[in-house]
Amino acid sequence: MKLIEPRNLKGFRDYLPAEQIARAGMIETIKKGFELFGFEPLETPVLEYEDVLAGKYGAEGEQLMYRFKDQGERDVAMRYDLTVPLARVVAQYQNELPRPFKRYQIAPVWRAENTQKGRYREFYQCDVDIIGANLGLPDAECIALVEMILQQLGLKKFKVKVNNRKILNAIMLTAGVKPENILDAIRAIDKIEKIGAKAVAEELEAKLGMTKNEAEGLIRLASTKVPDVGALKTFMNKYILREPQGQEGFDELNRVFSALEEFGIKNVEIDLSLARGLDYYTSTIFETIITENTESRRFGSIASGGRYDKLVNLFTGKDLPAVGISIGIDRLFAAMQELGLIEQGSVVSALVLNLEAGFEKEYIGMIRDLRAAGINCEAYYERADLKKQFTYAEKKNIPFAVLYGADEQKKKTAIVRNLKTRKQQEFKRKDLSKGLAKLLNR
Amino acid sequence: MKLIEPRNLKGFRDYLPAEQIARAGMIETIKKGFELFGFEPLETPVLEYEDVLAGKYGAEGEQLMYRFKDQGERDVAMRYDLTVPLARVVAQYQNELPRPFKRYQIAPVWRAENTQKGRYREFYQCDVDIIGANLGLPDAECIALVEMILQQLGLKKFKVKVNNRKILNAIMLTAGVKPENILDAIRAIDKIEKIGAKAVAEELEAKLGMTKNEAEGLIRLASTKVPDVGALKTFMNKYILREPQGQEGFDELNRVFSALEEFGIKNVEIDLSLARGLDYYTSTIFETIITENTESRRFGSIASGGRYDKLVNLFTGKDLPAVGISIGIDRLFAAMQELGLIEQGSVVSALVLNLEAGFEKEYIGMIRDLRAAGINCEAYYERADLKKQFTYAEKKNIPFAVLYGADEQKKKTAIVRNLKTRKQQEFKRKDLSKGLAKLLNR
Repeated sequence: MKLIEPRNLKGFRDYLPAEQIARAGMIETIKKGFELFGFEPLETPVLEYEDVLAGKYGAEGEQLMYRFKDQGERDVAMRYDLTVPLARVVAQYQNELPRPFKRYQIAPVWRAENTQKGRYREFYQCDVDIIGANLGLPDAECIALVEMILQQLGLKKFKVKVNNRKILNAIMLTAGVKPENILDAIRAIDKIEKIGAKAVAEELEAKLGMTKNEAEGLIRLASTKVPDVGALKTFMNKYILREPQGQEGFDELNRVFSALEEFGIKNVEIDLSLARGLDYYTSTIFETIITENTESRRFGSIASGGRYDKLVNLFTGKDLPAVGISIGIDRLFAAMQELGLIEQGSVVSALVLNLEAGFEKEYIGMIRDLRAAGINCEAYYERADLKKQFTYAEKKNIPFAVLYGADEQKKKTAIVRNLKTRKQQEFKRKDLSKGLAKLLNR
Repeated sequence: MKLIEPRNLKGFRDYLPAEQIARAGMIETIKKGFELFGFEPLETPVLEYEDVLAGKYGAEGEQLMYRFKDQGERDVAMRYDLTVPLARVVAQYQNELPRPFKRYQIAPVWRAENTQKGRYREFYQCDVDIIGANLGLPDAECIALVEMILQQLGLKKFKVKVNNRKILNAIMLTAGVKPENILDAIRAIDKIEKIGAKAVAEELEAKLGMTKNEAEGLIRLASTKVPDVGALKTFMNKYILREPQGQEGFDELNRVFSALEEFGIKNVEIDLSLARGLDYYTSTIFETIITENTESRRFGSIASGGRYDKLVNLFTGKDLPAVGISIGIDRLFAAMQELGLIEQGSVVSALVLNLEAGFEKEYIGMIRDLRAAGINCEAYYERADLKKQFTYAEKKNIPFAVLYGADEQKKKTAIVRNLKTRKQQEFKRKDLSKGLAKLLNR
């Protein structure tokens, strides 16, 4: 029979235990943060009717979405993000859900990305959203939550950048962008840090028919540094005030920042060039970058989101205020690895070595005792030379081994060996659980 | 614009927070049990090359598997169980993984089942497997693990039924089943409890060309009650001993039961009619049924598995001993709901009510303090009548509300209201976190 080659699809990967233990620890911290802020868990299916997902992510999304016909000839699609399924859920269970609805979801999504850019086709999103509450405190809470979680994960230098789509729209109109071209111009502006101002200016001229002056003027406006709300006000008064959207956007941003102040948020700044590619944002937008090691764009945005007051409308015909933020945990995990913030984890605290033939009964007795005391442990299943058993412990990063042979049986003791320091300590057999618990600082 | 109807695909469902909180609690207990026994987490992708999954689940599996061509015209399939991807992983990372490899995985799988039978097309599996260790202690440990977890979840009456495929094969041959028909006969015997002995006899006659005598003889043999290993030995000596497979199977079962005795397992019994539908089992097989409320088959099997020493062979060309058990958490959750073992969970401990316009600053200050003390809480975002705010708390099952208005501001106090008993208690504002923590028994 022909063997099947064991392999992954391009853009897909396995998380082997060593990595998965650390990753699960990071996710647990995030989850606890979400719940501390009053968000509840929601789970939605991986497959949806295609029309539920289609037409909401822009042209790129349409291409990258996994879709097919199922056994019943239904057009189905795989989850592309966690926001559109949330909008469906909110529309579908209007009377059952609390309002406002604060939910979190941590789950994989699928996009047939170009893997040459180091992108994955299956990756996790980690979202909190608040549906049914107006702008202000909810927007600030999303930012406060991300700040707290990143600090808990050990990150010291990062910035949450904030902007408002209405301000951006006003800047666009001021600079001469035609109303129908605003979304395209936003997508171009979004790339300033990635491809540089010159390339963006060229794109604006070529694609949107702007003059060189207009394009450069737009980039200049969007790149203006406004350290705080006061500076933003001056900027708005000077350049933007004749666009009513600009005033509205300024008032909104002002409300968000005054709530942020009450939360005592430090790592936040206004960035007028922040645009966010997705079509559905209507007002506040944010993005979080790690600023350790100077090269600020190195890790990309690790948490981003914004306000999307019109998405639920697609299902219900009515606007519903909504804001949310998504933590890119794969990117965050990679950044933390590089910054040395990920410790090699371990699930198992003790390995009972198999030293003596016919001692199965004793070894089972030991793991029963240890487990009853809440200590994660296992017995090496079969007789094997010690080197093999130690290699096993090492691969699983197990800190302690229990040694018990004929001598210990006679003395009614058991030896605990610290596998890092190689120090050994002998306990009475009946005190093994207590002794090991102490060594584990329990 | 035409509205999109918010709806789920048939056989797919959302877990809204009330249910998901309880479900996540159950999964957490299971996960902790897995880790207590020394299993480490593994994650594999949802999509695999079709040839990795195809041809391993029998004819039914081939029909029910979701498969399609991806954007690169690759034949891909959605995860159908967690065992075949594990076999792929073991073959793919032979040198990196510890040996034996003890892993757990808790993840959804997809099967285009007939939904009329109350089955879902997306459901979770919850598997532990031990790869690379010979029969005996590992098989017993799977059973010990399931017993512990079910007891921790509050289940009192259940039985793990155990059999051995080699004994079953010997019974088949003794009863006159042709070797090439054994798998079909196993699938028929597997249905005795579902469709009755008579229907199974008819199936054996019609499909496998057995005489009525042979069919009835087979059913009689497989239905023999053997309360313990001693009774099994008598049975084997009397009927089966001329089949060498029977002796081998008996020795194996005997080894497993002697390890089970050391583990002190009580809820286990031999069931010669236990067959398990899947093709890949080679030796030990098990199945767990809840026996509360007499109707033993009412909830179906909630944890099943067995030994499959030849599955990895399909990828490597070499046999590798392997045993595992899978907890059917959807079925288990439904059973626990019916038995009253699921309490309505809550994520949020306290809601700070919005009683006074312009108090946003104070309310944010309170949730900051409470969160700093590790208390999951939130502030009601906007001014609204009290009834609305209490309804919100009720929908989220929040136990405590914090009341703070102009009076409390003057007195520098805050009132905590138990939303079940309606009892109120006034604290100094600065002692709010401490007081609430005490009420929460922290």
